[in-house]
Amino acid sequence: MKKLFFPLLIATFLLSAASHYGHWGSAIEFGFAGLAILFAAGLLGKATESVAHYAGQRLGGLLNATFGNAAELIISIFLIKEGLFEIVKASLTGAIIGNLLLVLGVSAFAGGLKYKEQKFNVHLAGQNASLMLLGIIALFIPAIFVKTEHISDENTMTMSIIVAGFLILAYFGWLVYSMVTHKDLLEDHVDTQADHGEEPEWSKRTSILLLIFATVLVGFISEWLVHTLDTFSSRFGLSDLFVGAFVVAIVGNAAEHSAAVMLALKNKMGAAVEIAIGSSLQIALFVAPALVFISLLFTDHMNLIFSTIELAAIGVSVFIATSISRDGSTTWYEGKLLLIVYAILGVAFYFV
Amino acid sequence: MKKLFFPLLIATFLLSAASHYGHWGSAIEFGFAGLAILFAAGLLGKATESVAHYAGQRLGGLLNATFGNAAELIISIFLIKEGLFEIVKASLTGAIIGNLLLVLGVSAFAGGLKYKEQKFNVHLAGQNASLMLLGIIALFIPAIFVKTEHISDENTMTMSIIVAGFLILAYFGWLVYSMVTHKDLLEDHVDTQADHGEEPEWSKRTSILLLIFATVLVGFISEWLVHTLDTFSSRFGLSDLFVGAFVVAIVGNAAEHSAAVMLALKNKMGAAVEIAIGSSLQIALFVAPALVFISLLFTDHMNLIFSTIELAAIGVSVFIATSISRDGSTTWYEGKLLLIVYAILGVAFYFV
Amino acid sequence: MKKLFFPLLIATFLLSAASHYGHWGSAIEFGFAGLAILFAAGLLGKATESVAHYAGQRLGGLLNATFGNAAELIISIFLIKEGLFEIVKASLTGAIIGNLLLVLGVSAFAGGLKYKEQKFNVHLAGQNASLMLLGIIALFIPAIFVKTEHISDENTMTMSIIVAGFLILAYFGWLVYSMVTHKDLLEDHVDTQADHGEEPEWSKRTSILLLIFATVLVGFISEWLVHTLDTFSSRFGLSDLFVGAFVVAIVGNAAEHSAAVMLALKNKMGAAVEIAIGSSLQIALFVAPALVFISLLFTDHMNLIFSTIELAAIGVSVFIATSISRDGSTTWYEGKLLLIVYAILGVAFYFV
Repeated sequence: MKKLFFPLLIATFLLSAASHYGHWGSAIEFGFAGLAILFAAGLLGKATESVAHYAGQRLGGLLNATFGNAAELIISIFLIKEGLFEIVKASLTGAIIGNLLLVLGVSAFAGGLKYKEQKFNVHLAGQNASLMLLGIIALFIPAIFVKTEHISDENTMTMSIIVAGFLILAYFGWLVYSMVTHKDLLEDHVDTQADHGEEPEWSKRTSILLLIFATVLVGFISEWLVHTLDTFSSRFGLSDLFVGAFVVAIVGNAAEHSAAVMLALKNKMGAAVEIAIGSSLQIALFVAPALVFISLLFTDHMNLIFSTIELAAIGVSVFIATSISRDGSTTWYEGKLLLIVYAILGVAFYFV
Repeated sequence: MKKLFFPLLIATFLLSAASHYGHWGSAIEFGFAGLAILFAAGLLGKATESVAHYAGQRLGGLLNATFGNAAELIISIFLIKEGLFEIVKASLTGAIIGNLLLVLGVSAFAGGLKYKEQKFNVHLAGQNASLMLLGIIALFIPAIFVKTEHISDENTMTMSIIVAGFLILAYFGWLVYSMVTHKDLLEDHVDTQADHGEEPEWSKRTSILLLIFATVLVGFISEWLVHTLDTFSSRFGLSDLFVGAFVVAIVGNAAEHSAAVMLALKNKMGAAVEIAIGSSLQIALFVAPALVFISLLFTDHMNLIFSTIELAAIGVSVFIATSISRDGSTTWYEGKLLLIVYAILGVAFYFV
Repeated sequence: MKKLFFPLLIATFLLSAASHYGHWGSAIEFGFAGLAILFAAGLLGKATESVAHYAGQRLGGLLNATFGNAAELIISIFLIKEGLFEIVKASLTGAIIGNLLLVLGVSAFAGGLKYKEQKFNVHLAGQNASLMLLGIIALFIPAIFVKTEHISDENTMTMSIIVAGFLILAYFGWLVYSMVTHKDLLEDHVDTQADHGEEPEWSKRTSILLLIFATVLVGFISEWLVHTLDTFSSRFGLSDLFVGAFVVAIVGNAAEHSAAVMLALKNKMGAAVEIAIGSSLQIALFVAPALVFISLLFTDHMNLIFSTIELAAIGVSVFIATSISRDGSTTWYEGKLLLIVYAILGVAFYFV
């Protein structure tokens, strides 16, 4: 079985590519892409785990989150170029709530069925909570000011640019803080013993290369999948908002998703949390503000003002994810709670 | 004194019944009902405590909360049959904030005057916080979507039914989690020593029977009391909202109230918290969604959309109760804070 | 240098007074006042520290906060007399967010650059969080009821007076709780060792007198500074709201500011937190409600209804400050987060 993995990975990828570029029809393209992403996500999960072995759970999780969001960023730039700001904001919203509720929820649920209580660094959980709060505040404050006071479009854009700048400043400060000045405080000492004796298959270098390779594969296949789903959605009469916030976000986060669940099943909840919450943080504090700046290169500029229901969805996701992870441990029931909130949001968005 | 307890209980109950069905006049009915509820609630408190001795504080608290809310549920069904949805929602709101602020507040205040700091299981406090948050989210998300987007009445009802289903799913998951898979994690080890040597008056069986008996008595008397208060309120010009959310809720929760305070005075704050917060949880996650399903049996259906001020009242109650109980301990001042928030809400509802 | 301190303090104060009353021109008045406040704030910081040595960090912090807010109170009474309620509310908002974000932020940032992690009493942090939440609730509930329901101006005023009464009740309860019944629970045992051997320069009596003296000086100079800034602001076209919430608040809190930062740099974070959060609490729970009562002495009465954006600003400040201080420790990055939120609010208020 192990020997067949790479040949099957390549074969399904090529078939998916052929079906996509050859326009073989939505159903067939969907089938091949679905198959291909299974293998690619599997590789991604193993590579992340291997990198985490060498670099620590946090850095491994961060690398995974970054590569996962690179695809998000690239797709968004194409959408911004075409002025489709609402879809960009819907998919950013979907990515944040998808990571906080679906990825973290499935990880905690699946991991919790196997292990009674999964612990991780409680300091990190607290810091993540404060950072997520900053993310909400930065989206919420300009929105409420624009919605209740008379602020011109031009001033709204200027305000968005400045707030975006502050967010990026906060994100880089966070990297310095968590990777340099307070690295030790935020590290996971919980399962070092569990790792003892477990030798990774690949060298450090190979692991990183495979991580990059798997992320690129997943990025391509996700896009092909999203493309077929677009056809599906128009056939089933789903709104842009629902497709952006749920369908695209679920498929687009397949990478983070599978990696996080695999880590949770190996009782490395610290790395799973880092992928899920770390990825949301990256979107709120880096990807979203970066897109505001990138939009300045095009004719139409994108501001940071999200709609009321998007803000409500992000807000409740942050509150419940924070409430659950704050004590530095998760159980199956906490995972279930996150999934139920995700389902409630899905239902609400479906009826808009 | 002890020998006279049961005869007096029966006598006051019969007098209250006679005055109610004989229509002796509001003032007299009110007087007898008030007297009768004192004895009935006293029995309820003792029975809960005795059950808690055999079954643990949590199960005792849960049983008490369930019997207490059974009355709530029955009264609400009659109101739904008559299409009085607004009064049902007002009284559900009142029951939630009454338990979180008044019952918990008086318990913490009274207990705190006697004991400097009263501790309980900190895990349970955290889980309760997350569950209450789910309750708010499930009420808040459909409401904000309906209030800001164009959603038809039919879709609003469908959304309400689905969300109600998820809430009930969450509630049963919680019972499995807290009573089966993670029972030990949430138990109260704090005052086991205090129990040592204290022998309960009744056997396990008698205790449970008396708990049921007392709950039924309190249920009847509460309804009679509510009935007289209705007359009072129309005489004093109080709004339906105020009567539903405050008067009905205070009297209707007399059972939980007296039991929780008696437990707090015996330094069994874990059971008091379980009654207060557990009862609110039951209303938000079970009674309210169950009423949505039950309303489907009648001509007019009740949705889950609460008014803005009801949501605001529930929201702030959950936030302050969570903030105070999260550390697994209460003091007199924290009780006072809860009571002040209750008073502020009372004033605001009074002026609507 | 040390010998020159008092002469220079007096000289700069007199020069500032002369320039103010002699109307020497905004630029010159600004320069002298800026110079004078440096010395006065320096004295205030030292006096607070000395009082804290004798009375404990908490009482020292409380005294500092009280004297600091006395100036705030006096200025506000003059504004209320002239019916300038909006400016009063803007400056109360500014004082709350300025203390929670700017004072606490700079303290945590500066202290965090010197010490890796600065700890303080975790009980106190939790209680502060609950009290701040009460403050928000008391401002938020009347506002949301007035904004969504039909409530007459007269009833709004009556509601404001009652709620204001409850807040003052809560504040005095807090003083009894934290200074009498639960003093020991909330004390800072963290850096008692650090104090060992450090002898204060002044006696207990002299320290208290100097604290009062320094506060009075800072109060005068702040007002002169604010006066010059008024001229500046009209020249630069800043709105009343921005001037009230940011310019006045920054200058008016110079006292708390310098004292808190000096204490943080000496690793007495407990006292710094007490100044910053304690001062906000005092404004929300005592100064604001007291002003409602004081306004009853004049023709026009001030209610407690703040604008939506003011409530949003206060709300997010409390949430982020609470999230950061709840664990009883701060780091440089947490200080930076607070400052970024302050900057975001500043930008938003600037564009109104």
